[in-house]
Order: sequence, then structure tokens, then C-alpha cells
Amino acid sequence: MAHAYFTAGKHDDPAVFDLFFRRNPFGGEFTVCAGISEALSFVENYRWTEDDIDFVAERMALRNEAFKHWLSGLDCSRIRVYAIREGDIVFPRVPVLRVEGPLGICQLLESTLLNLIGYASLVATNAARLRLAAGEGRSIVEFGLRRAQGPDGAMSAARYSYLGGAAGTSNVLAGQVFDIPTVGTQAHAYISAFTGLENIPRRNLVDIDGTERDFVATVFRFRDQFGFTSTHDGELAAFITYALAFPGNFLALVDTYDTVRSGLPNALCVSLALWEFGYRPTGIRLDSGDLSHLSRHARSLFRSAAQKTGIDLPPIVIVASNELNESTIRSLNEQGHEIDIFGVGTHLVTCAGDPSLGVVYKLVQISGRPRIKISEEPAKVTIPGRKNAYRLYGEEGYPLLDVMLGEREDPPGPSQRILCCHPYQRARRSWVTPSQVEPIHHLMWDGRLAGPVPTLAESREFCRTQINRLRGDHLRQLNPTPYKVSLSEPLFNFMHDLWEREAAVGELR
Amino acid sequence: MAHAYFTAGKHDDPAVFDLFFRRNPFGGEFTVCAGISEALSFVENYRWTEDDIDFVAERMALRNEAFKHWLSGLDCSRIRVYAIREGDIVFPRVPVLRVEGPLGICQLLESTLLNLIGYASLVATNAARLRLAAGEGRSIVEFGLRRAQGPDGAMSAARYSYLGGAAGTSNVLAGQVFDIPTVGTQAHAYISAFTGLENIPRRNLVDIDGTERDFVATVFRFRDQFGFTSTHDGELAAFITYALAFPGNFLALVDTYDTVRSGLPNALCVSLALWEFGYRPTGIRLDSGDLSHLSRHARSLFRSAAQKTGIDLPPIVIVASNELNESTIRSLNEQGHEIDIFGVGTHLVTCAGDPSLGVVYKLVQISGRPRIKISEEPAKVTIPGRKNAYRLYGEEGYPLLDVMLGEREDPPGPSQRILCCHPYQRARRSWVTPSQVEPIHHLMWDGRLAGPVPTLAESREFCRTQINRLRGDHLRQLNPTPYKVSLSEPLFNFMHDLWEREAAVGELR
Repeated sequence: MAHAYFTAGKHDDPAVFDLFFRRNPFGGEFTVCAGISEALSFVENYRWTEDDIDFVAERMALRNEAFKHWLSGLDCSRIRVYAIREGDIVFPRVPVLRVEGPLGICQLLESTLLNLIGYASLVATNAARLRLAAGEGRSIVEFGLRRAQGPDGAMSAARYSYLGGAAGTSNVLAGQVFDIPTVGTQAHAYISAFTGLENIPRRNLVDIDGTERDFVATVFRFRDQFGFTSTHDGELAAFITYALAFPGNFLALVDTYDTVRSGLPNALCVSLALWEFGYRPTGIRLDSGDLSHLSRHARSLFRSAAQKTGIDLPPIVIVASNELNESTIRSLNEQGHEIDIFGVGTHLVTCAGDPSLGVVYKLVQISGRPRIKISEEPAKVTIPGRKNAYRLYGEEGYPLLDVMLGEREDPPGPSQRILCCHPYQRARRSWVTPSQVEPIHHLMWDGRLAGPVPTLAESREFCRTQINRLRGDHLRQLNPTPYKVSLSEPLFNFMHDLWEREAAVGELR
Repeated sequence: MAHAYFTAGKHDDPAVFDLFFRRNPFGGEFTVCAGISEALSFVENYRWTEDDIDFVAERMALRNEAFKHWLSGLDCSRIRVYAIREGDIVFPRVPVLRVEGPLGICQLLESTLLNLIGYASLVATNAARLRLAAGEGRSIVEFGLRRAQGPDGAMSAARYSYLGGAAGTSNVLAGQVFDIPTVGTQAHAYISAFTGLENIPRRNLVDIDGTERDFVATVFRFRDQFGFTSTHDGELAAFITYALAFPGNFLALVDTYDTVRSGLPNALCVSLALWEFGYRPTGIRLDSGDLSHLSRHARSLFRSAAQKTGIDLPPIVIVASNELNESTIRSLNEQGHEIDIFGVGTHLVTCAGDPSLGVVYKLVQISGRPRIKISEEPAKVTIPGRKNAYRLYGEEGYPLLDVMLGEREDPPGPSQRILCCHPYQRARRSWVTPSQVEPIHHLMWDGRLAGPVPTLAESREFCRTQINRLRGDHLRQLNPTPYKVSLSEPLFNFMHDLWEREAAVGELR
């Protein structure tokens, strides 16, 4: 395309592209905007090497030296990018990015920008929804390295899951590169590697006061006290060894043999012994079975053991995993459970419920002339021209709707009445008198970075704030209320006039 | 885990891990093995830098200097990897990889190996299924860059789609890095950027004999001849410009305004003009509407135009895209169509029909002792011990089944009768006298690469060969016949004895 534009002498025509999507994912009514800082970094570093040019010229049999020369000097110094802030909430048809500048370079950015924004926003939204499903005081962590599209797919998943609300990741490299809390415990292989009590390497552990004492004897004292005689010795050896390696961070995977008859009793004895040595035992992980029942059983077992022994054991952290998704978490909430942390892998990183966000990149203006992409499906018709978008807030502080206006219209203001029109249905419109008006887009690239780029932690915090500002009915899982995205009356009229002019009148015989 | 093994002095215990999956994806009965060469490259380059060690030590509050020293010297020089050849067909429970060596290092490889094999095999299988759905003489190409998990997810998608049978990719970088054919045409933005005939940059084109002639006049001669007066001028300008830029490679996106009344007539006139100038016009792309009807309409329009004008226009290539997947392609086949190339994006790279392959990595032997992972779900019980797998072929040349044997058993041989047992159901077994026996696993890493690693093109060719060797009923989409994976009788008995010993007897009150 760039070569054809160049051949036509159109590569420098001033163009405006909108990057947007038409439908919120996961049956919801909101989307988290993510991938902005990566998109800016891509724009900042956009260059063609000699190798790149030679490769493309050879593959496409291009002998146009002027075009190759143009490519060799190409960068993004002549474009502008307006974007929604990373972590903000974004709704269908409101541009996530508006890219302005010479047609050729704007076109070349298309696929990569779509790639960088699409999955990032999708997985951030998924994480935000999972966090909402888990509820206050509970958290979700990203466990999906093994199910991602290669190692770098996993890095993207960890980064944007954290942005959307995950509390941590099991991906240690992502923790290192993006400064995300890392979480994890044993796998079943760890437990299976211990075949019996002979695998315990040593008996002693230094307690919190610095005294070395017989830890194994303490564990067995509790085991005898409770009469846990039929638990699996290999599993107990694995737990004791893990406690010796991580006395301050003990988290036991309890389902390798039998959660109720072996895993939980073994974990309890080791936890009590750690507590007696002055360490705060962390908890257990459930990875199979009835998570509702087992978590309640675990909580009550540890509580009653504390009562029985008179030991003031603090509440353990109960982690659950095993193909969890939004529906299973909500179902667990209905059944009642004692889970503190949900480890979500496959369903978080693959976004199995809706594995793609249909972001598109459409030309909306060329050489000052607004363009419309028409379609037999009305919902696929694009909103033409360079336009500005605002979020209007009501008296109660909630956002009421987003409205787009043509670039030459005056922006809406607080206490000013504005007619907001549904983009496709003439009869659906409403007067709005906002208490507060916020511009949705911000100039982020103007030949160079237009301001500081927020850190991941800042965007994460902003995301949480923006979600909390939304009215609850937009957030709920079942039949959420659609959030309105509208056009000013002048933009509505302009769009529909252009649509009518561009669309051929059909003729059936 | 590695630290706990180290604390227990178990990190050097000889271990055997199997990497496998339990279910074929997409409701099918076969899986393409992929990711092997990347896995070997990972093993070859496995090292801990000082930064890595410091990061982990700080995050996990590790003060164990001996462990840190051990990490700093760690590599894969003491492990062995047996694997299925990349591109071969693999079935549930047969290990894709067997990793043998000291427990600590084998354990550390787990997550990354799962990551590298899982998605690669999933997307290669998806591409293979799509190619089968498209049928002989037709092809599929990967169009999914914009829907992948970040830029590197897209690279994995392109690489393994090609391995599984895609004919090319729209991802130019993947074409460059992996030497994959690149395919592509205009986007709608390209067409929209041309507003009218005034956008045509010049009239002349050099014909195949080197003479510069008026190309635009030739296009308009055909337009007049056919009476195509109501087609969109901007679209025609876009096509003419594209033809001027790529006279030998013209492929027109015909659905921007109206496929039947504008796109196809415009493309036809430009194609005929190119043919008259001595170029072979490539074809058209349909991206919306009824692809069955439109492709047949396009074929017949071009054919009848050739007859009407007496021009011997060669058949055009018809490319179709628009959220295609295996089911829509099979539905198109039923309706009848004239599509030559299916461009598949979202559904290929996200594997939306089944977005993860549940690969697992299980300890099957430690210090010479076979281990079993039991579960309340029988199908999740692992097959213990170090074992060898063979593919047995019947008289007609088709593979009959795969069979696993304990490492001390003699391998099966041609014309030797062997009892092959279902892994979980004692009553399901069968005598097999194979005509041919092939070992499934090959030693690929023995402290260093054990042999040359096949190229992507070689693995792709091998994949096609191996799929063609399978009996057709294993390949079909609806209710395919399961391919049998079995155990030798001694391995079956050993597994079930161990299972019985490890599983606690329940007691209900």
C-alpha cells in the first residue's frame, strides 16, 4: 500500500486514522484501554533498516529507488498521536488512538498498532473482570505462562493482567522486567519427588530467635496429637523440606494424594510447627476437587486446630487454581468459599471467553476531506472526520456518556445543555447537562513524546480509579447496562448525509 | 522448588519428566507436534546471569550462598531430551518430550518448555485442520498479526501456522525471519484514500514489451464497452494506481463500496487492461458478504467478460477473508464456491475454537523409582516410569496405534504379535501384529545437540507427509475415529499395581 501511495504521489497527503473497536469483550459493557505506552515506544523507534528494505524490495520485486530512499529516511517525526490514557475505560467506537500525519507512514503503522493495543486491552479487561468477580478483599494472580503464545506472549499477558487488576504473576521474568509481584508455590512434581520420610534432609531449623531446634520432632508432635496416622509420608517430607527452605513463606500444595485425608493434615502440622518456631505460615493451595467445600473445610480444620491446641494461629491464605474463569469464580461466590487468592492461568491469558478484541484502524479523513467506510451492516459504518471525544459526568459523579464532536465544534462545558445522538438511530437522542466534562483523548506524540509516559503501577492505579467511578450496573456480569457513546447533532447529521451520498441505491429485479 | 530441592540435597537426584497432553484440540483426533527446535534452543542457551540470581534471591529473601553458586553454574550439559520429531503427529498421553537428568535443572525447565510446545503445537494443528478443510488445490494463509498476543505472539503464530500447512503469512517480519512466503493486498483504508479519478497519478504504463502506453485509456475503453457507468470513481482510481505500482501482482479488494456493482466491475476493467499490456493479473479479495455467492459471481463475471471480448484471460485468484474458521470453510464447501485462497486471521492465531492445549510436565521417575500422579479423575492419572513409544503400522501402510513399553522391555518388531492395552480400562486390549514398527522418540539433546535440527521448511514437509499417512477417518471433522494409544501388558500391570498402592482407600460414613 505504501508503495502504491508513493507511486500515486499520495504518501504525503495529510491523513487521519482512528483505531477503535465495535463491541466490548466478554459480554460486558466496558473495556480497559491498554498498550498505549508500547504503541508510543513503537512509534518512537519506527525505522527501516537497509536489510528490511532489501528484503521487501526483493519479495515484492520493487525496483523503485525513490521509494526505497523514502523508506530509508522514514520515521514518525511528522505524525501526531492522540490517545486515551492507559488504564482508562474505553467504549465501542470511541477511538483508542487517533493517528494524524502523512498517509504513507500512518498506513505503515496499522498492523503493529492493532497488535499492540488489541491483546493488551483484551487481557487487561479480562483481569479487571476477574478482580471484580473475586470481590473486595480477595485477589487474582496470573498463572498463565504455560498457556501463552510463546514466551513474549506470556510477558504481555503478565504485564497487562497486572495493569487490569491482577495482584501478581507466576512469571518470574515478568516480575523482574515489569516490577510485578511474583507469586508461586510447588507443582505436583515437587511433592511426587519425595517418596518417604527418609527424604527429609535434616531435623533442625533456626527459630525466629536464632535458636536451632528439632523442627521435625515438633511436626511429629502435632501429627501424633491429632492422630493423623494415615497421611502420605512423601508428601509430609516434601512439606517439611519446603518449610526448611522457606520458613517465612510456606505455602503447601495439598491435593497431590488426597486433600482431606493427607494434604490438609500434613500442611496443618507443618504450619503449627512453623508458628511455634516464630514464623508466620502463609497457607495452602487447592488445585482440584470441590474448591468451595475444600476451602471451607480447610478453614475450619485450621481454626479448630488452633482452638484445640490453644495456639493463636493467624488465618492462613487459601489459594485456589484449576481452570478458573469468571463464571467459576462467581459460582464459588454463590456456593460460599474461603478462598483468598484465585490463581487464573489458561482463561486469563488466552481470554478463552472471547479471545480477540476486534480493533480496527480506519481512515476517517484525507487531505481535509472526511471519509466514511460504508458497509451492508450499519454497525460497521465508520464515523467520519477528525473528531474530539468527551466524557460527561452527572450530578452524582458518575460518567453519563461519551460524546464525539466534529473538530470545528465548540467543546461541551459544565452546565451547558447538549443534544447527544445515538450514532445509528435517529430517534434515540437525549439532552445532557453535565456537571463535569473531561476530554477523553490526550496528545501523546507530536513528532516526539508529548509528555511523560506513566509507569505500569501508575496506569494500574488509574485503571482501578476509573473502574470505581463507573456506575455499578455497567460493570455487572449478567445483562450489564450499556454505557452510551453518542454523537453531537452536527456530527450525526454530517455522518448520515455522507453515508447517504456514498451508498449506491440498490435495485432488485 | 529448586531451592527446596537444593536444601533437601535432592537437586542432583536422577529424574525423568514427561511432557504430554491428555486431549486433542478442536474436537479432533490428532495433534501436530511443534515447538521442538525452539525447545532445544532454549535448553542449549539455558543460563542464569548474576542479575537473574540477584533478582530471585531478593524477591524470595534467599540468603543461601551455596544455592546461588549452584544457579550461577547451571546449564543443561547433564540432561537428555528425547522428543517427537517436529511436524510429526502426536496423540494424547504419548510424551512429546522426555526430559532426563538432575532433578533441579529438569524442574526449572518446566514452565518454559510447556510454553514453547503448547501454543506451537496448538496453532500448527489448527493450520493443518484448516488446510484439510480448504481441500486439495486450495490453500490457507495466515492473516492474524493484529489479533496475536503482542508482536512476538504473532511471530510464533506465523511460524507454526506455516509448519502446520498455511501457504504464507501477511506478517512481513515473519516472512523475513523464518523465510515464509508473504501475501497481502490493500486494506479498506487504501481504497478510501482515493476520492475520485483526479487521484490517478499518471496515465501511462510500460507494457511487457517495454513500450509506454496509455493504461488509463485502456481501462476506460473496457469500462465503456461493458457499460459500467455507476461504479465508484475513487475505487477505480485506487485500483488503477495499485496496478501502476504492481502491474505484475494486481490483487484488488473489491468490497469497500459495493462488491457486485462497483468492486468487481472496476477490478475486471483493470485486469483486462493489465492483460492487454502483457501482465498476468492476480485476482481479487472478498472481505464481506456472501462469500459463496460472490466468489461464484466473480468467477462467472470474469469468464463471461473473457468470452465477450474474445480475450483469453487466465483464471483469476479469488481470495476470501472475514472471520473465517474451519466451520465456515466447510460450510462454503457445501454451498459451492470459487475461492482459491482463504485468509484466516483471528481464528487461526487465537485458536478460538480451543484456545489452549493442556500440556503438562509430570515427574514419572526419581532415583530409579517410577512415580505416579494419582487423581480422582482416572484420565488424569499419569503413566509412571521411563518408557519407550512405538508406532505400529498395519498391512495397508496406515499407522494402527501407538504403544508404550517400560524401558526394560524388548521393543516390538515387525511380524511380532504384541498385546496392546488401553491405559485405563483392563477389558479393552488387542493383539497387534505390525507390518512395520517405528520408534516415536528420538534423542535430540545429550548435553549438546544430538544431531542436526530440521529447518522450518523440512518440518512443514514432514508434517504434510505424516498427516497423509494417517487413515482418513482419524482426520475428518465430525466424529473422527479415535487413534489408539496403548500400553504393553507389563506396563499396564505395573501402572495399575502402583496406582492401587498409592491411592488411599476411601471411607464414607
